[in-house]
Amino acid sequence: MKTENSFVCPIPIQQYPQVLLAHGGGGTLTHQLIEKMFLPAFGNPLLGARHDGAVFDAPGHRMAFTTDSYVVRPLFFPGGDIGALAVNGTVNDLAMCGARPLYLSAGFIIEEGLPMDTLWRVVQSMKRAADDAGVQLVTGDTKVVDRGKGDGIFINTSGIGAVRPGPAIVPSSVRAGDRILLSGDIGRHGIAIMAVREGLEFETTITSDCAPLAGIVAALLDAGIDIHCMRDLTRGGLASTLVEIAEATALQCEIEEVSVPVREEVRAACEILGFDPLYVANEGRFAAFIPPDQAERALDLMRQHPLGAGAEIIGTVKTGSPGLATLRSRIGATRVIDMLSGEQLPRIC
Amino acid sequence: MKTENSFVCPIPIQQYPQVLLAHGGGGTLTHQLIEKMFLPAFGNPLLGARHDGAVFDAPGHRMAFTTDSYVVRPLFFPGGDIGALAVNGTVNDLAMCGARPLYLSAGFIIEEGLPMDTLWRVVQSMKRAADDAGVQLVTGDTKVVDRGKGDGIFINTSGIGAVRPGPAIVPSSVRAGDRILLSGDIGRHGIAIMAVREGLEFETTITSDCAPLAGIVAALLDAGIDIHCMRDLTRGGLASTLVEIAEATALQCEIEEVSVPVREEVRAACEILGFDPLYVANEGRFAAFIPPDQAERALDLMRQHPLGAGAEIIGTVKTGSPGLATLRSRIGATRVIDMLSGEQLPRIC
Repeated sequence: MKTENSFVCPIPIQQYPQVLLAHGGGGTLTHQLIEKMFLPAFGNPLLGARHDGAVFDAPGHRMAFTTDSYVVRPLFFPGGDIGALAVNGTVNDLAMCGARPLYLSAGFIIEEGLPMDTLWRVVQSMKRAADDAGVQLVTGDTKVVDRGKGDGIFINTSGIGAVRPGPAIVPSSVRAGDRILLSGDIGRHGIAIMAVREGLEFETTITSDCAPLAGIVAALLDAGIDIHCMRDLTRGGLASTLVEIAEATALQCEIEEVSVPVREEVRAACEILGFDPLYVANEGRFAAFIPPDQAERALDLMRQHPLGAGAEIIGTVKTGSPGLATLRSRIGATRVIDMLSGEQLPRIC
Repeated sequence: MKTENSFVCPIPIQQYPQVLLAHGGGGTLTHQLIEKMFLPAFGNPLLGARHDGAVFDAPGHRMAFTTDSYVVRPLFFPGGDIGALAVNGTVNDLAMCGARPLYLSAGFIIEEGLPMDTLWRVVQSMKRAADDAGVQLVTGDTKVVDRGKGDGIFINTSGIGAVRPGPAIVPSSVRAGDRILLSGDIGRHGIAIMAVREGLEFETTITSDCAPLAGIVAALLDAGIDIHCMRDLTRGGLASTLVEIAEATALQCEIEEVSVPVREEVRAACEILGFDPLYVANEGRFAAFIPPDQAERALDLMRQHPLGAGAEIIGTVKTGSPGLATLRSRIGATRVIDMLSGEQLPRIC
């Protein structure tokens, strides 16, 4: 059962080069997929119980529960793939609740005809990402839809985490005076995807920032930082997070344009594509709202972590314009940041 | 905010007759969908926190966690729809673990162009089913895929339940001598779906058995019945459950054909369609493995519940042919029940 480190697909590809409708039918082919591919790849006692669900001891007094479906196109992109994204995205949602991610579910919706080897690559990637993030994949489901009624593979992951004791990490904990910290440069995930789709070539390949944030968050909490609120900057980017927090708290979130790190190649790509990096999706970046007297220490802690090396303090929560997110530009002008109205980047995650 | 009892779609249909890509983009249209449709429909404090995940107190010492994606076609069928199915299916998986279902997540993958009113009907149906089953929908996610890359709507639900104290309800608890109880007639869900797809007309409409099983299971457990194992009879039907339990326990599961209730119209439809009712999916039926001295009492308890009125003792666990499921026919011959090899009914759930 050492298939997890193997690059050979455990389903005989000569016999089943593609996923068939019957692989989702609950019969022998579903059975084979579970026994030969999923169980050995993700192998753990909870999954191995082969029951309708995973049963485990409650991981603490308070728990977090979250879900996300992943429909990214293309399935593989520089810096990641749908499998890594499906694990990291849900791990990050748990981390943003101040929870230690523990258990994930995986629901696959596969289009008939998906190359079996593609499924295997995705499964291996999920396994690696789960190991990196320290979570176990404990329950799953596979459905196959007819050709032309899906798009390769969609993955839902739901996650359970143990919430640390301490004050709730929620928008309502944010206070005027809180500093807004950003864990690193923004825009790479969205631009990496778009560059592949549009066939854009740059001197250096732009890679997604896709990564699990539970470790860097734990470093802050372990050090006693009172994080008031956190958000990972996925769909809608930094801009949407700032607008959401401003609206939820009826406070003003003001950031300094000059403080927001954007790599040169990302900025160039944004100009070509007509995007504003503030709105571009990230998959390994977050914003944290931190009491002012702890902000410098939190920044140092972030920068000591590999996923926060480029962290910056980018702004402050104020009372001046309740419910608005604002940006002070390089030349000192202030403008309101709106929520994205249309669809900038479909199927980015 | 009394939209949950309203039949008027809370999104202005003149303006947005169909779901757009931007409804999944994380901007203002996603925001509108969440604020106007999902939050009022499913409204509860956990969902209302608008956070990346739901945070709640651990519901007990042991917990169950399960996931399922629903891709049924058509979306609406006699006796149910994809929304009711998505709630009941996951509630039932939790019930089969001996858990009281508490919290559900919902992940929507919507095809661009889905009529907004269809989404609203599905959401209302989920709300009704969740109320009936006593679960709360506490976290969710919406993705929209481009036209032709999905099929109306797919729904993933994951669920968390509190496992009752007592011996584990798992295949490894099954013992030789256990009686096999079936909670009612089989085959209706699968045949209801196929009748719609094939345009078959019968004298009476065959309706799906789609229903939440947590109540009838609780009635058994509350009365002190030592359920050794349970399975709801979804994809692959009764046959697949018997094969799985026989294989997992290395015991023989023998059933009497004459004891398995199948409605006359279902039997007739199966003959027309070339199906064996043993393999047809159900969404409100389960098999329970019960110690012999408690079997009659368990049967009485089942029959007292509206969802178990047609319950029967259909067979016995034996040691004779380890790992095999067998059926004694009306004329006394015994045959082996195989797992379904191909795909009998695609996209049944």
